[in-house]
Amino acid sequence: MCDAPHYTIHNHQMHYGWDNAFRPVQTIAPGTTLLFQCNDAAGGHFHAGSTAEDVATLDFSKTNPVTGPIAIDGAEPGDAVKVTFGGFTPSGLGWTANIPGFGLLADQFPDPALKMWSYTPGTPALWGMAKVPLKPFTGTIGLAPAEPGPHSIVPPRRVGGNLDIRDLSEGSVLYLPVEVAGALFSVGDTHAAQGDGEICGTAIENAMDVVLTLDLVKGANLKMPRFTTPGPVTRHLDAAGYEVTTGVGPDLMEGARMAVAEMVELLAARHGLPPVEAYMLASTCGDLRISEIVDAPNWVVSFYFPRVVLA
Amino acid sequence: MCDAPHYTIHNHQMHYGWDNAFRPVQTIAPGTTLLFQCNDAAGGHFHAGSTAEDVATLDFSKTNPVTGPIAIDGAEPGDAVKVTFGGFTPSGLGWTANIPGFGLLADQFPDPALKMWSYTPGTPALWGMAKVPLKPFTGTIGLAPAEPGPHSIVPPRRVGGNLDIRDLSEGSVLYLPVEVAGALFSVGDTHAAQGDGEICGTAIENAMDVVLTLDLVKGANLKMPRFTTPGPVTRHLDAAGYEVTTGVGPDLMEGARMAVAEMVELLAARHGLPPVEAYMLASTCGDLRISEIVDAPNWVVSFYFPRVVLA
Repeated sequence: MCDAPHYTIHNHQMHYGWDNAFRPVQTIAPGTTLLFQCNDAAGGHFHAGSTAEDVATLDFSKTNPVTGPIAIDGAEPGDAVKVTFGGFTPSGLGWTANIPGFGLLADQFPDPALKMWSYTPGTPALWGMAKVPLKPFTGTIGLAPAEPGPHSIVPPRRVGGNLDIRDLSEGSVLYLPVEVAGALFSVGDTHAAQGDGEICGTAIENAMDVVLTLDLVKGANLKMPRFTTPGPVTRHLDAAGYEVTTGVGPDLMEGARMAVAEMVELLAARHGLPPVEAYMLASTCGDLRISEIVDAPNWVVSFYFPRVVLA
Repeated sequence: MCDAPHYTIHNHQMHYGWDNAFRPVQTIAPGTTLLFQCNDAAGGHFHAGSTAEDVATLDFSKTNPVTGPIAIDGAEPGDAVKVTFGGFTPSGLGWTANIPGFGLLADQFPDPALKMWSYTPGTPALWGMAKVPLKPFTGTIGLAPAEPGPHSIVPPRRVGGNLDIRDLSEGSVLYLPVEVAGALFSVGDTHAAQGDGEICGTAIENAMDVVLTLDLVKGANLKMPRFTTPGPVTRHLDAAGYEVTTGVGPDLMEGARMAVAEMVELLAARHGLPPVEAYMLASTCGDLRISEIVDAPNWVVSFYFPRVVLA
């Protein structure tokens, strides 16, 4: 679905945060295919022998480096960059952390925790009894915002960025609204696996190479990112069905927190997992869905944990 | 998965709203299988020739009748009712309405609209070019709340009720926290198809018979409803992949509204659908998911429309 790459953008050709004053590392014609070497979200801070103590020494000014930016000839505000996702080549070494102050249940899990993953690409990643099916994708993918000056890498914006959308994987096509001349595209924060929500704040974080074709849709005038998937999105997870917990109430955020807290309790009780491990595991494979958003004043948020992971 | 029913609870054995003073229509032993005749959410108000004008004469004091209540011997507060879903027998006549003041985009769609569906159970329901795969389920399923007096049928609660969870379908097992002696179980508001969110406020609303086994888990002490599914939950929808729109921002409700409004615009533009029809169609098959809920201060809500519906 992507041609052979015309350029390789190396993992040292990267930046921290977003700024439309960053100088492009490459300028391309629309329709060009590139291979991006993406750093993991900790920029190589963790290694096979890392422990929870290494979470404390993370330098947050250097998290989520993104490879780029790439200037696209002729891109102007109002256009969209069309990104076609080719293949991913994960390194096989990943990490999942509970970082104090970060994550949906940060108040309940104040202590650092770290899981290092070592897996054979194409096979599930193992953690004790758990087998997590992999589907590599780009966590952070976006364009420079129009507003001048530096911007944090953490929040996503209408130009994309730290979207953490699990289905931006091989074969998908993403459309991002352009806000500056040249668009200034960058990508990183690659994940080997994540559930919808990325509830603990990290996925299976993993350096990897990804092949992308960058094209332009003139005058698309998108308000927000859009994408298509070429086929099913959860078949790697769904075969054995799901355990599902719910949060019912008038606030979607509280509903999500309740559903996830209930799942952590369920997994811990049934499988003898330490709660923080249940939370981190669920972040790599469990999906947050809005079951009902119209029966005022109470909405239903559901958290789907795939049973195949602990079968 | 359910035995042959021991009782039939007829569709006239129903009530409006919830009240723990309602007299049970049947008292059963735990483990009993029953056939419930469920009314549609408008209690038979619409018929094959109904039009949008008939939406205006809906009597809201008589919407969402639920069949029951059933008292379960020995059920006490702190227990859970375990509901095992057997087979569904839909009538083949359904409706989807845009009801003024109701639905996620009520402000954008102030006028009544109605689609009557006539389909052969087991085959997709047709609307112009659209083919909606069916998966019948119970929209409203719950127990009487502890708080005395009458309670609206509209909002779901921790005892269940109008949960509108699309995956409470054949083979699933639901656990509901008991708040009153006997539990007082009722069910109705059956849907032939719905996407996660039920965005326009209605699904393919449809009278149908459903076979359920009601059992008891003593001392379960659930905070919220939980359920399991026996297998995949979206394979009826996912084969051709998805069109996906997103809402990125600091409020999940606004993100959901944005993602859905963008999808309505996309479907209307691409397929020449009147926007209200795109909205109603999307309610029957499109899924709201929380892609990312940790990258403060902005979250990503995504709306997944299955391409098989308009292939």
